Amino acid sequence: MSRRRQLKLGAMLHGVGSSTSLWRHPDVPSDASVNFEVYKRWVEQAEAGKFDLAFIADGLYINEKSIPHFLNRFEPITILSALASVSKHIGLVGTLSTSYSEPFTVARQFGSLDVISGGRAGWNVVTSPLEGSALNYGKKEHPDHAKRYRIATEYLEVTRGLWDSWEDDAFVRDKASGVFFDPAKMHALDHEGEFFSVKGPLNIARSKQGRPVIFQAGASEVGRNYAAKEADAIFTGHETVEEAIAFYQDVKRRAAGFGRNPDEILIFPGIGPVIGSTEEEAERKYQEVVDLVSPENALLYLGRFFEHHDFSQYELDAPFPELGDLGRNSFQSSTDRIKAQAKEKGLTLRQVALSVATPRPTFIGTPEQVADRVQEWFEAGAADGFMVGSSVPRGLEDFIAHVVPILQERGLFRTEYESDTLRGNLGLAIPVNRYAEAKRTAERV
Amino acid sequence: MSRRRQLKLGAMLHGVGSSTSLWRHPDVPSDASVNFEVYKRWVEQAEAGKFDLAFIADGLYINEKSIPHFLNRFEPITILSALASVSKHIGLVGTLSTSYSEPFTVARQFGSLDVISGGRAGWNVVTSPLEGSALNYGKKEHPDHAKRYRIATEYLEVTRGLWDSWEDDAFVRDKASGVFFDPAKMHALDHEGEFFSVKGPLNIARSKQGRPVIFQAGASEVGRNYAAKEADAIFTGHETVEEAIAFYQDVKRRAAGFGRNPDEILIFPGIGPVIGSTEEEAERKYQEVVDLVSPENALLYLGRFFEHHDFSQYELDAPFPELGDLGRNSFQSSTDRIKAQAKEKGLTLRQVALSVATPRPTFIGTPEQVADRVQEWFEAGAADGFMVGSSVPRGLEDFIAHVVPILQERGLFRTEYESDTLRGNLGLAIPVNRYAEAKRTAERV
Repeated sequence: MSRRRQLKLGAMLHGVGSSTSLWRHPDVPSDASVNFEVYKRWVEQAEAGKFDLAFIADGLYINEKSIPHFLNRFEPITILSALASVSKHIGLVGTLSTSYSEPFTVARQFGSLDVISGGRAGWNVVTSPLEGSALNYGKKEHPDHAKRYRIATEYLEVTRGLWDSWEDDAFVRDKASGVFFDPAKMHALDHEGEFFSVKGPLNIARSKQGRPVIFQAGASEVGRNYAAKEADAIFTGHETVEEAIAFYQDVKRRAAGFGRNPDEILIFPGIGPVIGSTEEEAERKYQEVVDLVSPENALLYLGRFFEHHDFSQYELDAPFPELGDLGRNSFQSSTDRIKAQAKEKGLTLRQVALSVATPRPTFIGTPEQVADRVQEWFEAGAADGFMVGSSVPRGLEDFIAHVVPILQERGLFRTEYESDTLRGNLGLAIPVNRYAEAKRTAERV
Repeated sequence: MSRRRQLKLGAMLHGVGSSTSLWRHPDVPSDASVNFEVYKRWVEQAEAGKFDLAFIADGLYINEKSIPHFLNRFEPITILSALASVSKHIGLVGTLSTSYSEPFTVARQFGSLDVISGGRAGWNVVTSPLEGSALNYGKKEHPDHAKRYRIATEYLEVTRGLWDSWEDDAFVRDKASGVFFDPAKMHALDHEGEFFSVKGPLNIARSKQGRPVIFQAGASEVGRNYAAKEADAIFTGHETVEEAIAFYQDVKRRAAGFGRNPDEILIFPGIGPVIGSTEEEAERKYQEVVDLVSPENALLYLGRFFEHHDFSQYELDAPFPELGDLGRNSFQSSTDRIKAQAKEKGLTLRQVALSVATPRPTFIGTPEQVADRVQEWFEAGAADGFMVGSSVPRGLEDFIAHVVPILQERGLFRTEYESDTLRGNLGLAIPVNRYAEAKRTAERV
């Protein structure tokens, strides 16, 4: 009998939260985004809950309209490395932009994190949605959406090449003969492309898992193809199971079209569960958070998706304004959806802003109800796993304490880690070093 | 009575060592450069020994002639961050080049490390001596020595500006009123210079120590001026106390010339102590290491200072060859010195190569003898402290175990940390935020 398909779980570590106002709740430490002890405790809890990974998001531009968490937060490479030495099994995944960095440095930093953590690193490849990022990096303009993905494609090609600089048995370290490494197993990349020229080799060898796991979150047409072709796993977000199934099938189909085994690309919708011992308690928790959001804050939050557009210039209770192409070069798939829903349902600006700032959670109720919903999505083919964040205080902690045991009891989720690498726990194969593979192929011919 | 001037100590964490052959010694773990447990143990020992700081060096280019440690080692930001969460008091200092990085990213990463560690970060600002680095970063050429320092000057200006993006009391976090921060205490840098254009603000606030401590190791004329003007501390290296005193006085004089208090720039010669319970044991330890180095290895090691020049083309026992300007655009001060000494003393290539690969240590002998030498240099005004590395197996550990207690007994070195920040332990003031200072000045006028 083959083993039952197992659910995967990730924890989104997001400081004071991804909303404008969660920090005001009495149960949220208002300095959480720069409090290492808070992050450490989250990782310890997620690891006790046998989560596959913890995830740190990122951004490269702020201004006075940015939400609290974005203003003052840990940088992903540093916080993940600090968490690596206080954890043993959980994967450590962070966002880093290919539009404003150098592949040699990024390959090194993720490669080093991967070795330090014993093969638990993951990289969420993003192309930077925020136009302002260019201003912090001395660039005349933010590259357009299509160009950013062309850069990202070449970037990943370079990075993967650098990670293969050393074959797994390159370091002989024979004290008697004095041979430290085998030069035939050291490989310079000699990449010359449209955007990058990188000689190599990288000055760190592969980890136990071969190379960091690649995550992606693109949802646009270009983004979906990139993810389906390049990623090991995809972060996504959906309000209904039907939408999630459609996305899941679309990405798996695209992956197959690129000649990949669709089982080797894992899809993780993000959820912000609200859990109470009764339905009423859960509902009360959600209302507490809704009550913290003023219309002004909701407009600010909405503006972020539209290049910090000033929505306060419009009448709050008039129909959602006509915005033309605004937002299409930043969070393309989100802004397209917001506009479409506003039009379709005839929503006012206030309704749109509040629903974006504190969307009604799909995963709300008692632990059993939330576990049922998780199981439903998982078994319906809407998800391979979930990224669990806190849309209410201790949302993640409640999920770990109360929902995970039910999922374990139902045989859907592990009770012990299968592996000490991220790839191992995700059930992904260790990629063979390209040079070792080429030699093997040559020998067979 | 004013407190007696106190010695400062740093630990150089250098994997399998900065020589070609130390890894071959039976007491050296041959994978030390990529073994996190080894680094963790070193930091724990250095912290138990009340060291001010641990230091990670770096480089951005390797080829098949590179020494073992350089081929495959941890990247500084990641290893320092991983060490931050397993230590409490010791400073964490790493090298990062201003020639191949972006100030916004570097300010963020060191700023984030500084917050994660509770104010213990330090940055050794280098300009990258290796020409090959350009090839890993898509650059047509490695900038020349003078230009690299011009870039470094502007770079540090930008970085310091970004670190001041938020005044120390900018984050109000008042849950009742909903005020998260005071916009009047958030500052965009709006830097437009010769090499960089950076808007800001940075998305992380200052740590308890204000900003990371700046280290520098330039020894050329340009490098000394840069260090004297910009650095909080200087790494250097000298064979004799006279040389060290001359350097110390020169840098302090230059610092005064730039309007600085010379006590606020600390000078740390690097030492590789060889300690035995008897003089004979120390001598034997040194000989064990010398015996591991073949002439071929010594030539390779020498070549590294001269842009990987192939010294095997010359007769080993002929006079040191005439090299012209070779090496002047890389390790300028080292290569100038090697050439001058070879000429002055009429040395052969073999003699030069062996003396560079395994120089006879100045700090060798019993714990008392080494402590005497440390005290002599310190009291003679040759050093404010020392960077202690392992030129023989467990050289650092022996120093901590056997020499530190003597220095403590003599009242030269702390028995407890004075502070939990690096600046605090080094006795350096916390820099006032530039914008807060400007406001105070304006109020006084």
